[in-house]
Amino acid sequence: MRDYPDIQGAFLKEGYRISRVGVMGLKRPVRIQRPDREVNLVPVFNISVNLPADQKGSHMSRHIEVINRALDLAVGIKNDSLEKLVGRIAKELLRSHDYATYADVELETDYFMERESPDGRRVTENYRLLAEAKIERGDDKPTRTIGVEVAGMSACPCAMETVRSMLKDELLQEGYEPSEVAILDQVPAPTHNQRNITTLKLEFNDDIDIEANELIELVEGALSSPSYEMLKRKGEGKVVLDAHRNPRFVEDIIREIIGRFLERYTDLPGDMILHVRSLSEESIHKHDAFAERISTLSELRG
Amino acid sequence: MRDYPDIQGAFLKEGYRISRVGVMGLKRPVRIQRPDREVNLVPVFNISVNLPADQKGSHMSRHIEVINRALDLAVGIKNDSLEKLVGRIAKELLRSHDYATYADVELETDYFMERESPDGRRVTENYRLLAEAKIERGDDKPTRTIGVEVAGMSACPCAMETVRSMLKDELLQEGYEPSEVAILDQVPAPTHNQRNITTLKLEFNDDIDIEANELIELVEGALSSPSYEMLKRKGEGKVVLDAHRNPRFVEDIIREIIGRFLERYTDLPGDMILHVRSLSEESIHKHDAFAERISTLSELRG
Amino acid sequence: MRDYPDIQGAFLKEGYRISRVGVMGLKRPVRIQRPDREVNLVPVFNISVNLPADQKGSHMSRHIEVINRALDLAVGIKNDSLEKLVGRIAKELLRSHDYATYADVELETDYFMERESPDGRRVTENYRLLAEAKIERGDDKPTRTIGVEVAGMSACPCAMETVRSMLKDELLQEGYEPSEVAILDQVPAPTHNQRNITTLKLEFNDDIDIEANELIELVEGALSSPSYEMLKRKGEGKVVLDAHRNPRFVEDIIREIIGRFLERYTDLPGDMILHVRSLSEESIHKHDAFAERISTLSELRG
Amino acid sequence: MRDYPDIQGAFLKEGYRISRVGVMGLKRPVRIQRPDREVNLVPVFNISVNLPADQKGSHMSRHIEVINRALDLAVGIKNDSLEKLVGRIAKELLRSHDYATYADVELETDYFMERESPDGRRVTENYRLLAEAKIERGDDKPTRTIGVEVAGMSACPCAMETVRSMLKDELLQEGYEPSEVAILDQVPAPTHNQRNITTLKLEFNDDIDIEANELIELVEGALSSPSYEMLKRKGEGKVVLDAHRNPRFVEDIIREIIGRFLERYTDLPGDMILHVRSLSEESIHKHDAFAERISTLSELRG
Repeated sequence: MRDYPDIQGAFLKEGYRISRVGVMGLKRPVRIQRPDREVNLVPVFNISVNLPADQKGSHMSRHIEVINRALDLAVGIKNDSLEKLVGRIAKELLRSHDYATYADVELETDYFMERESPDGRRVTENYRLLAEAKIERGDDKPTRTIGVEVAGMSACPCAMETVRSMLKDELLQEGYEPSEVAILDQVPAPTHNQRNITTLKLEFNDDIDIEANELIELVEGALSSPSYEMLKRKGEGKVVLDAHRNPRFVEDIIREIIGRFLERYTDLPGDMILHVRSLSEESIHKHDAFAERISTLSELRG
Repeated sequence: MRDYPDIQGAFLKEGYRISRVGVMGLKRPVRIQRPDREVNLVPVFNISVNLPADQKGSHMSRHIEVINRALDLAVGIKNDSLEKLVGRIAKELLRSHDYATYADVELETDYFMERESPDGRRVTENYRLLAEAKIERGDDKPTRTIGVEVAGMSACPCAMETVRSMLKDELLQEGYEPSEVAILDQVPAPTHNQRNITTLKLEFNDDIDIEANELIELVEGALSSPSYEMLKRKGEGKVVLDAHRNPRFVEDIIREIIGRFLERYTDLPGDMILHVRSLSEESIHKHDAFAERISTLSELRG
Repeated sequence: MRDYPDIQGAFLKEGYRISRVGVMGLKRPVRIQRPDREVNLVPVFNISVNLPADQKGSHMSRHIEVINRALDLAVGIKNDSLEKLVGRIAKELLRSHDYATYADVELETDYFMERESPDGRRVTENYRLLAEAKIERGDDKPTRTIGVEVAGMSACPCAMETVRSMLKDELLQEGYEPSEVAILDQVPAPTHNQRNITTLKLEFNDDIDIEANELIELVEGALSSPSYEMLKRKGEGKVVLDAHRNPRFVEDIIREIIGRFLERYTDLPGDMILHVRSLSEESIHKHDAFAERISTLSELRG
Repeated sequence: MRDYPDIQGAFLKEGYRISRVGVMGLKRPVRIQRPDREVNLVPVFNISVNLPADQKGSHMSRHIEVINRALDLAVGIKNDSLEKLVGRIAKELLRSHDYATYADVELETDYFMERESPDGRRVTENYRLLAEAKIERGDDKPTRTIGVEVAGMSACPCAMETVRSMLKDELLQEGYEPSEVAILDQVPAPTHNQRNITTLKLEFNDDIDIEANELIELVEGALSSPSYEMLKRKGEGKVVLDAHRNPRFVEDIIREIIGRFLERYTDLPGDMILHVRSLSEESIHKHDAFAERISTLSELRG
């Protein structure tokens, strides 16, 4: 067979090191075998390795070969979690690219989960899953990240109190008695609310298998309310009331998630990094509001 | 000068007619000289012509030449409205592509307008402008479209009544008297609200110069409330209250715009086509709700 | 059970008809049972109905109920093609919304297909599938559309001849003989090439089951070359050569698809509408080039 | 005037620190007065500060006030560079949010520059500018970043040699003599080429005013070829030839930029951080190829 020139392998005398070289936006279906169910996902992958100063190029097709091998059920590889899958790919990248000392992979995918709506229906809700792994040659294990992205509802606590105050003033001016008006303190007042997108990511070095479903439930519990694809009139009312009884800034959502996480997962390693980010697509503004916290568990445990 | 082969101009014996061939996504700054002010815009252009069955290709660079000529202030062309600009481009396209019998151009651009916020501040708000023109050879004038896209707030009228009803029930169950609870009918109840994106487009054949600013104000008036980039506490409360006193489905917004348009513009030609579209990025759902109406003014006037 | 007010059902005295009201961006996993295989898809759905002038609102949750029913395998519904699925949803929408006389649904989804690369490897390639159905009350059957979106490679025939001509001129000026230079006419010259996105859609009223895989292969055959996720050196060379031996304008791609389609499918009904669109993300420009043709088969058959 | 409750200012006993809280996606026109010209830009801003553990919320409207003040020409503020503008905003954010110890701002905007095309025409080309500033309380100056994003052309050096080799083999098999075929070594062979997006960012602490135009030219010079919005036949041929005489992997582009930068800017501080990233939207693949290098100038100078 004819041997075509290996341009990538060419030796460079005065090159510069490349921090990362790889492929972005590779779509490939993935099947994960969880203990209790099989999950079909369609992730988008980004994959890269570093490149020493004296080598002209990286062999990009090896990236794809690694992905192919990792996903090929035919050869008997069983992926039982996303974090194992990305960890396996990262290690395999270093094996394939012998000139590289660093490799990483990240993926993002739609994910669906059955939830019970407030009016008691089973609904299929849509989320996003994220997973990453990066490894330095010599590392015992890759650093892995798993994460969930959840859309739900945030309701503003500040505007609610301003509105309550304005409504009471108006009624008093119309001649109502303070005692009559006081009932407005017993019920939530209107406020602006909106679609909120919150992401929770965990970065760790040990072998940890956290159920994405649990992370999703944890995040949903920290929003003003989860959102649902299917609500009849009563369910809609309950969601709105729920959100207005839990009005939350993006800052509140971040803190609520941290608090719930620390309470729920007490034995995770202190060097695990928590990355929480919440974005509200403000209904009263054309821009979005966001907050984030990145921290180790040790630091958060104080 | 060397003459390179004109592959596009090649004669095809058994070709098929091409409905549209052109360029998409061309960005180019534009200056519009309105009677009272100069407006700097950065539109994205799509431009195309048709192609007869017997010609291999279209000369794409002529599209860009036409745009260049139309935008070149140096040659003394003064664009005093977007609809004149796109009309001029459409006519020029037919002149440049002598084999074409049809030409069109569309553009979309950010647009900024000063507004007064409910707490009395001057704020710069962001909108989108749209303009299109299409022409058949032999037409006296191109058909032009101008449009505005406005982000604002929609509040759901249905959930508001459900929530009001639930809150009253709860208070009655807690032992309050019906007479005490009745005050809840005097104030807006909480409901889900969200960012809403509404587009109003007008298609016409005559020479009409409608101020985009007026269309924007008309759309904003038909939403539950405009949104503002800058609100202090009191302004925020006013916007929320305003929105809750005008709760509107996307269907309502469409109808409100039609009604206001017919009332405001009484002498526009009956063959003008109104295209109204409203989309609410639902806070209680992960999907959006939308409604649209496309109709001539004659039909709407009934 | 408490009955909450049906705001949507309210009677309007002076309303306007709404052309379409519905939901956009609903994601939901779908399983299609093809004769030879099971296909898992994750489509995004848009769904709408019209609304008479005298009704305030549409019951949006019914849209979702219809989707749920259509996708619920538990109740024994077997979807054996996307066009049957969307047809079923459209009919069901009219049944659910008794006030509506029009309904439509459209979906778009990633799709994967095994292909053989030019160096003989099995590769999983990524495409998009589209499906639509719309129905007027009284119609026997909904009008359905199915389509495929294919990314591949386009190489410019015009620049190739210019470059060939320039290269020959250069060599002659360097002192080569015309007879020596003539060999350049035997091989493809360099030209600009780029990622091309081509869409083929079919709209029809009869019950037709066309394999998406066949449409994808037909489109790939009409490009300068298909693209592949995984190519070793020799395969890469073959793809580049293949593309340069089939240099094509977007206009050429459109015509090639029409020609191949008419030849391949001879007994499809004449009122079927073919919609072909091709877009090249030009490497020599910052904008894209595109062409499209929309036509009935009758007209194309001439 | 009525004083509404300051919910954001509320004291939290057991809160968590928030790393960043702010607004995203704020669009606002900006006028920059360069020594030789006035530049109108339409950036999108992201702005944030940190928040101590004991404060409930951040006063988001102050973010917008700061932007307003920084952009308000009426009050006599003259922005003569993007890096000064973002630096000023960062400092002002800390002044406005007295509880914060960190602030940052980033913006991104379209930018247009006149270039001369290879066929000698003046063409308006489209780029992107980026600017960031971040500051810790107590810092003398904010850390600023400026950057440019440039779309151009990359041509693959590896496929070119494979194709050249294949073409020569084919001709030899067809009976040509090696001496006849040798002329193919004198001209560039076909290869895959594509739209490439390359970003160059500089992060620094000193007061440095680098012309974005120079950075854009530097990046364009490091690509296989710049791209142009407007090319006649000859110009198109020249661009294709130029690109094929400078075939470059994304890795090559990174290194070329670093080399050119070090040569052009010899007196910049060693702690300046260079971030170069190049992405090729591969024509032979459905995914993209990318490379990046992040490094101080000291390290690069070796």
